[in-house]
Amino acid sequence: MADHVTVIESVKLDDANDAIILLDQTKLPNKKEFLQLKTVDDVWDAIYQLKVRGAPAIGIAAAYGIYIVTKNSTASDFEAFYQEFKKAKEKLASSRPTAVNLFWALDRMEARLMKEKEATISEIIRALKNEANLIKKEDQEVCEAIGRHALEVLEPGWGILTHCNAGTIATAKYGTALAPIYLGEEKGYDFKVFADETRPLLQGARLTAWELNEAGVDVTLICDNMASIVMSQKKIQAVLVGCDRVAANGDAANKIGTSGVAILAKHYGIPVYVCAPMSTIDLNTETGNDIEIELRPEEEIKTKWYSESMAPEQVKTYNPAFDVTDHTLITGIITEKGIVSPSYKENLAKLFD
Amino acid sequence: MADHVTVIESVKLDDANDAIILLDQTKLPNKKEFLQLKTVDDVWDAIYQLKVRGAPAIGIAAAYGIYIVTKNSTASDFEAFYQEFKKAKEKLASSRPTAVNLFWALDRMEARLMKEKEATISEIIRALKNEANLIKKEDQEVCEAIGRHALEVLEPGWGILTHCNAGTIATAKYGTALAPIYLGEEKGYDFKVFADETRPLLQGARLTAWELNEAGVDVTLICDNMASIVMSQKKIQAVLVGCDRVAANGDAANKIGTSGVAILAKHYGIPVYVCAPMSTIDLNTETGNDIEIELRPEEEIKTKWYSESMAPEQVKTYNPAFDVTDHTLITGIITEKGIVSPSYKENLAKLFD
Repeated sequence: MADHVTVIESVKLDDANDAIILLDQTKLPNKKEFLQLKTVDDVWDAIYQLKVRGAPAIGIAAAYGIYIVTKNSTASDFEAFYQEFKKAKEKLASSRPTAVNLFWALDRMEARLMKEKEATISEIIRALKNEANLIKKEDQEVCEAIGRHALEVLEPGWGILTHCNAGTIATAKYGTALAPIYLGEEKGYDFKVFADETRPLLQGARLTAWELNEAGVDVTLICDNMASIVMSQKKIQAVLVGCDRVAANGDAANKIGTSGVAILAKHYGIPVYVCAPMSTIDLNTETGNDIEIELRPEEEIKTKWYSESMAPEQVKTYNPAFDVTDHTLITGIITEKGIVSPSYKENLAKLFD
Repeated sequence: MADHVTVIESVKLDDANDAIILLDQTKLPNKKEFLQLKTVDDVWDAIYQLKVRGAPAIGIAAAYGIYIVTKNSTASDFEAFYQEFKKAKEKLASSRPTAVNLFWALDRMEARLMKEKEATISEIIRALKNEANLIKKEDQEVCEAIGRHALEVLEPGWGILTHCNAGTIATAKYGTALAPIYLGEEKGYDFKVFADETRPLLQGARLTAWELNEAGVDVTLICDNMASIVMSQKKIQAVLVGCDRVAANGDAANKIGTSGVAILAKHYGIPVYVCAPMSTIDLNTETGNDIEIELRPEEEIKTKWYSESMAPEQVKTYNPAFDVTDHTLITGIITEKGIVSPSYKENLAKLFD
């Protein structure tokens, strides 16, 4: 119920102490440890070592990072300040060279800075702080809006299956697929959540089960191959998943296994909702066939996490990181602007009108 | 091709050395180690510690066990020999109190013994050896027949998905679901096998991938949640699984996850064959609803195999060992008597006429 739900924020500004307070996700689920990041090296290290993960959370950490390391600048003019800013920006940008959100957030901070050329240094610093706060606030608003819209189609007491982690710790707050769970919990909806462990990297076990449990949500961990039996036993009334990219026809790329869950749900007559911020909808990608699937190293299947090798060394593996859920399997795509129903080709395009 | 395929036998009699040669399955996949069992304690220990697993393989080990430990008896009459036999039988029967095949094999050995009341001790011992060999031979014949029948519906070069382990190491030889793979390999069928790792206990990774790789079969290990993507990519032309029990209407209970694989296969238009020795077909069980599903401990999901806990200690789990695949999802049930097609209710009953 409302006052019992504490949703974890994985990245927070502690302005009084010139620091970012960051949940160290590499320690989960065994330890809930918050780090105090004060230097550009602290922030670089946290991103590089995946102590912060999830595209929105990385962007927020980078934005606060550049504010923190420049806020005590002794530069006397814009040019000197800009040089310090540039140095910090380049350093942070090198922490994860494939993280689009990282560059997006840093570029946005720089754009804000460039608007303040005529301002005093302390005005500039205030503007950077506002911008970083705004990046976080906007992400939280997106998550809350997705959660609110999703609640329109969910009923109190429902069993909800989720896959991988699209939760609060990957975003400013609430997450995407987990946003309706948290918002529902605040309203006393009392959902029963089933979390797929999500092999090979176990984001469901390590992260989703952890964060829901921390918030007091009723969560049950299952292995991926148990989704069918829990659906057959009528324990599940809806499937909620996040996504990495939605094509123009509604095909949705998400963590490997999502398409299988959607097929099972269709078989058992259970609705499937993909929670997708507008930023993940890519009208330039015609269908899921145009989305390239990342193949990952075999040690994730064979040895990672295990105390000894759990598969023969010589045996081949196939380890795709994502799969595409066909749009015909998706009941609705839930964005911050509302729920999109089929036909997706028409209705997704309308979102951008 | 024929002469390159060496199918592992997990239980062999080494009569010259008064021993059973047993593959230690607890060491797999990291070590291929054969044990020499000579005493009743050796055999008891091997069964108790799951060094031999798989219902048929356990029965064979027990039958050879009782032969090995009584063959050098110095008893001078039937009654004295019978006392020794009884002692060994009771000891072995206590090794796994829920293993039906264990009792079945031991009872069958005792029944053979009772037929030899008038024989000499050495004739009795010869009869026990013959009976144990027969138990193994019959199981091998069942497996070969299942494999032969299955090959009628499989084509060379096909991709075949299997779940859990219904292989040679669980039986006398060849296995059930893997029998057509081995027999096909001997004929140069060149199947491409995809093995689900089969969480939580990883029988697919540890056993199926291992034994197929040992035999030189082309095998690729995937996580359970990758079955959908490999089917969507047309890598799979048939699904072959074993089973624990088939109900009168064709519903089949097998390792958890089997029903999900069957639903995915139906979605992608791929045939599903359940390989089922006649001994697993239970006409007294009307439908799958009458099959009780064993629930297993949470540590299998949360911590087993892992070097550290991979899920929050406090979180609930749901860990069913088996699920039921609805008969409507099964293309054919392959027994040693041939392939049974729908309607299963009529056609399974006919098998027993």
